[in-house]
Amino acid sequence: MALSVNRQWRLKRRPTGTFSEADFELATAPVPEPDDGQFLVRITHLSADPTQRIWAHEDSYLPIQPIGEVMRGIGVGIVERSRHPQFLVGTTVSGLFGVQAFAVSDGQMVNPLPPDLPPEAALAVFGHIGMTAYFGVTDIGKPKPGETMVVSGAAGAVGSLAGQIGKIMGCRVIGIAGTDEKCEWLRSELGFDAAINYRGNLSEALRRQCPGGVDVYFDNTGGAILDAVLERINLKARIVLCGMISDYTRQHALGITNLRYLIFKRARIEGFLVLDYGPRAGEAMQALGGWLQQGRVKYKVDQVQGLENAISAMNRLLTGANTSKVIVRV
Amino acid sequence: MALSVNRQWRLKRRPTGTFSEADFELATAPVPEPDDGQFLVRITHLSADPTQRIWAHEDSYLPIQPIGEVMRGIGVGIVERSRHPQFLVGTTVSGLFGVQAFAVSDGQMVNPLPPDLPPEAALAVFGHIGMTAYFGVTDIGKPKPGETMVVSGAAGAVGSLAGQIGKIMGCRVIGIAGTDEKCEWLRSELGFDAAINYRGNLSEALRRQCPGGVDVYFDNTGGAILDAVLERINLKARIVLCGMISDYTRQHALGITNLRYLIFKRARIEGFLVLDYGPRAGEAMQALGGWLQQGRVKYKVDQVQGLENAISAMNRLLTGANTSKVIVRV
Repeated sequence: MALSVNRQWRLKRRPTGTFSEADFELATAPVPEPDDGQFLVRITHLSADPTQRIWAHEDSYLPIQPIGEVMRGIGVGIVERSRHPQFLVGTTVSGLFGVQAFAVSDGQMVNPLPPDLPPEAALAVFGHIGMTAYFGVTDIGKPKPGETMVVSGAAGAVGSLAGQIGKIMGCRVIGIAGTDEKCEWLRSELGFDAAINYRGNLSEALRRQCPGGVDVYFDNTGGAILDAVLERINLKARIVLCGMISDYTRQHALGITNLRYLIFKRARIEGFLVLDYGPRAGEAMQALGGWLQQGRVKYKVDQVQGLENAISAMNRLLTGANTSKVIVRV
Repeated sequence: MALSVNRQWRLKRRPTGTFSEADFELATAPVPEPDDGQFLVRITHLSADPTQRIWAHEDSYLPIQPIGEVMRGIGVGIVERSRHPQFLVGTTVSGLFGVQAFAVSDGQMVNPLPPDLPPEAALAVFGHIGMTAYFGVTDIGKPKPGETMVVSGAAGAVGSLAGQIGKIMGCRVIGIAGTDEKCEWLRSELGFDAAINYRGNLSEALRRQCPGGVDVYFDNTGGAILDAVLERINLKARIVLCGMISDYTRQHALGITNLRYLIFKRARIEGFLVLDYGPRAGEAMQALGGWLQQGRVKYKVDQVQGLENAISAMNRLLTGANTSKVIVRV
């Protein structure tokens, strides 16, 4: 079978602010040939994730994204050629394939997907997004029935799931998002008890919506929202530090000034990464699958057409334009 | 017995920056008469604590210190008159008696002290200071042998004990303090493995002294020191938030910009208060008493003479003039 050329978004320079297409080069390259123990994936769907902005900027939990190389990204695709005994041609797989049309892999960190699972569901629920929400809530936030849980970035892919999981665990859940439309979606479609548009008077809204304080805060934004929630935390509150997207496009992070409330309230902020939960993936998948079937968890996909739009797709996250999971249809 | 008049430091206005004597009034008042179930304490020693600056400024874990009332403070004294069945005349007691010469108490939150315990030791080790260090390290920091532990405010009352407890628990301990003399004391007298004067290039010094990163950070200062240590934390590091003294005299807290490292390193910041450990006081006292006898824990007292100097005594903490425990000899 004759394959077309590969197309790849290569990082050209470090971004400042949101991504710019000028930070990248849309290069063409020959479609690579798999060696023994490798296989070739034709990528069909790419996941746009806020953490890509971290990768492009600094050493983090992964080394900084090298200049000149294909931008890191998670995707779903189909095995087109294989010299690997476990990954057969025609298998649908997900993995860190890069922001490109074709990738060669040796199978490390690659998961085969059930044939009947839509790629959108794989990326929006049954992969890193769902696991992040599930383990962030259950393992770090540990909410108890009757507690108040606040979620920022609540209309995002992880936030919308985290809030719904909080509801399932018996919490009163308040979402924080950046538009009235997102807030309306959280309340009317996802069953959040309340939603706050942070572009208003956030402290006042938190006081009104959380009269009994905040027991669990699932934080996707950091910045001013974290500072405002800190003023409302309860004794022994748990702040789940999942992301700090409000800082990603700043030259300097917005300093957090209210950490003293952690002392006053004997509370904690804890960071976590989905990477650490690989061995427990089955637990999350089973729970999420059940809730999805029962209609207790819903998701939405914000789909962008064409690899050529992958950079603007990532920017939808950084500007808050998206609702729920942004996926690029390659 | 004829008692002299009482002298009391009453808060007159909210402080800005360090305490000023103009923020207070040194008032005289009749020595109060104990009612049934009360006793009168003649205060001999007052503890100067950084948290008094918090009390004077805002609602925290206690309601804000009311204007016009005697400034809150912990002290040691002797029961002079008693109409309380458990607190007999002549007993030495410690409690939240206020910054004054005499106090009436009903015994709540008051502890009788062993007759042979010097009041200085009671305040510097066998009370809130020792318990804060002990439970902060063992219950929140949970260091393992071989780990690297950093302590800020290391020459302070709590910090110097926390570092020594870290050593006893098998850690490599690095202290951060504000003068070369304090650093020398930490190294040569207290057995810290290294000490850093934060007025130099702190990031560079941390890199040099903690080449393997930081596993436990016992933080008494917050601010720029916390931000610098965050850059060096290891996987699953535990930051014990004990105090944030660098912020207490600022109008606005210095914003912390490096919280993202909590995500990168799956680490946590946890606040705690000694108040919560009352039921476990015996455990701390037994451990500290044993270590003190064995010479494995040392303390020093920074003594100020006279109730009239109580405000400047508190300021010794806020300006970093003190080494170890500041006590006012009433």
